Amino acid sequence: MENGSSSSSSVPSTPLLKDELDIVIPTIRNLDFLEMWRPFFQPYHLIIVQDGDPSKIIRVPDGFDYELYNRNDINRILGSKASCISFKDSACRCFGFMISKKKYIFTIDDDCFVAKDPSGKEINALEQHIKNLLSPSTPFFFNTLYDPYREGADFVRGYPFSLREGVPTAVSHGLWLNIPDYDAPTQLVKPLERNTRYVDAVLTVPKGTLFPMCGMNLAFDREVIGPAMYFGLMGDGQPIGRYDDMWAGWCMKVICDHLGLGVKTGLPYIWHSKASNPFVNLKKEYKGIYWQEELIPFFQTVTLPKECTTVQKCYLELSKQVKAKLRKVDDYFNKLADAMVTWIEAWDELNPSVNAGTAAAGKPNGAAK
Amino acid sequence: MENGSSSSSSVPSTPLLKDELDIVIPTIRNLDFLEMWRPFFQPYHLIIVQDGDPSKIIRVPDGFDYELYNRNDINRILGSKASCISFKDSACRCFGFMISKKKYIFTIDDDCFVAKDPSGKEINALEQHIKNLLSPSTPFFFNTLYDPYREGADFVRGYPFSLREGVPTAVSHGLWLNIPDYDAPTQLVKPLERNTRYVDAVLTVPKGTLFPMCGMNLAFDREVIGPAMYFGLMGDGQPIGRYDDMWAGWCMKVICDHLGLGVKTGLPYIWHSKASNPFVNLKKEYKGIYWQEELIPFFQTVTLPKECTTVQKCYLELSKQVKAKLRKVDDYFNKLADAMVTWIEAWDELNPSVNAGTAAAGKPNGAAK
Repeated sequence: MENGSSSSSSVPSTPLLKDELDIVIPTIRNLDFLEMWRPFFQPYHLIIVQDGDPSKIIRVPDGFDYELYNRNDINRILGSKASCISFKDSACRCFGFMISKKKYIFTIDDDCFVAKDPSGKEINALEQHIKNLLSPSTPFFFNTLYDPYREGADFVRGYPFSLREGVPTAVSHGLWLNIPDYDAPTQLVKPLERNTRYVDAVLTVPKGTLFPMCGMNLAFDREVIGPAMYFGLMGDGQPIGRYDDMWAGWCMKVICDHLGLGVKTGLPYIWHSKASNPFVNLKKEYKGIYWQEELIPFFQTVTLPKECTTVQKCYLELSKQVKAKLRKVDDYFNKLADAMVTWIEAWDELNPSVNAGTAAAGKPNGAAK
Repeated sequence: MENGSSSSSSVPSTPLLKDELDIVIPTIRNLDFLEMWRPFFQPYHLIIVQDGDPSKIIRVPDGFDYELYNRNDINRILGSKASCISFKDSACRCFGFMISKKKYIFTIDDDCFVAKDPSGKEINALEQHIKNLLSPSTPFFFNTLYDPYREGADFVRGYPFSLREGVPTAVSHGLWLNIPDYDAPTQLVKPLERNTRYVDAVLTVPKGTLFPMCGMNLAFDREVIGPAMYFGLMGDGQPIGRYDDMWAGWCMKVICDHLGLGVKTGLPYIWHSKASNPFVNLKKEYKGIYWQEELIPFFQTVTLPKECTTVQKCYLELSKQVKAKLRKVDDYFNKLADAMVTWIEAWDELNPSVNAGTAAAGKPNGAAK
């Protein structure tokens, strides 16, 4: 592996968390998009999860340090438990989360490029994600000047002092300039809409509030929340697609709320280059759009018992409740609940020590006081 | 009254809601600050509430249409109920909310000036507040691209379609460039900190989340939420100050959550010119800083019964719970609970017809589905 040395001023001289973070990329094509990210990503290790036909050769630009897993590798490593990893869908990225041995994960889609801030400077998305993850979150009370830990900002008048320490940040959700992450119906209705608004803010998604987590530009603390980042069953042989990251986001958020962990959204932006086909998307999404109307009330009201003191315990409990309450929506959720259990079994098999480590991460039922 | 005609491009040719909105300004000094606001405010009616010595003459620049109330007026109009209106404190602004006959209120402090957006254009704060109030809020689910009703934005993938209609917006909370709204301890620790970050976003404060509402730059739908906008007992003869807007914000938010109404924060910015004296502020605040640690858990857990179908009913119920649960914090809350009842009595006396109108405004216990 060679270390990238670049003249860009936005590249930190010593890359943050260089040995503690893996970049996970699901792909079906040659990774030419990495050329643009070279100054920012080259110091880091990449985990590439090849989606689809394992006989295809994926070309990775020279100079990157990577490991690549195709379907054959996943089957070999997980055996019968490989059934929980989606095939022919970018949901397979969660295999990379599981196989990593690092504390932090950044995952990005291969149609995402380096965006520029309003001053024209290239945005080091990874650096911003790391800043987000290394500073606390404030889920119990909303700060009107956004992230209070950011330079030039603070907690405003009326913010309780006892809450100013914040809680550990588990997830950093980044946004997209150019092509917004719309569902198929919105894509069809607004084919020309582009996101040109650069909102210079990072904020904590409050406790008890769900949000649509997009997997395109996402980072998280794997030791703290990793086992909750399961992207479900999508793609080949499954009745829905494009709900992989949503599912992970809802499960993750409910567990973070229970364990007293924080989730941030906002900066950094990446440049999302190409809208996916809305007709294909509609086919993938339509059941999800319908089912979602029952899923959201489920996640809004789900509660986890105090005994759930680790992410794994929370996730297994959630799988039980999915089975009990969502099976009636469609048999798919029965299958998904089983896959959730398989996922945790596979995670624990590959991460025998981390299992114990997560117990200390959160305070169950983290409350305001 | 003469109508302002200005060449500034940010002034709408027909001022929005010209006959449906009052601008409420609490003050102790000549209102020279209005000169800078002339192109934006002159078409509107002003309600000036004179704070402190009623014998002092407050000068208002020519050409503004206004009514002015001093303490003598308040005593005359409210009689014994005038006890609920604070004296020698900008909390007296809520008398203006009560005496108004308009549907909408914008209230602003007299040390707030016109801010500029990053392109250097003067910001028509009032116009942005009106836009915020006239478009729905989305308290039940967080949209990662912020206000989905804004031009160039929408609901992102994974946002439930059943929630895209939103709910009526009751309150629009604007922010401040230059001097941030910090408490005295933060002012003392960071005397030179200035807010220079223009965050180009409006967002809904999610259901179940409290925030510190600042009265400096605030608009609301008086017909929908007016009776909840009581700024409490502050100033002369009271043990605390600078918690007037906070109190109103917590009460208001709890009631909005119950009635299914929305609260937005973010744009517009005003230019806050001068930091108040941190030593004086500390004296006003210190009990509040201490008490607040018990107030926030109270407001975070308070629930209103289904029978509370109007803002008035909600507010009276809240006053009962304040009396029952916060009296133990300090006898001040006993007094405040009584003042809350007096406030509603005075409101209903001055607004006999609006009382019935609010019943239709919200859906009690507005839930996600």
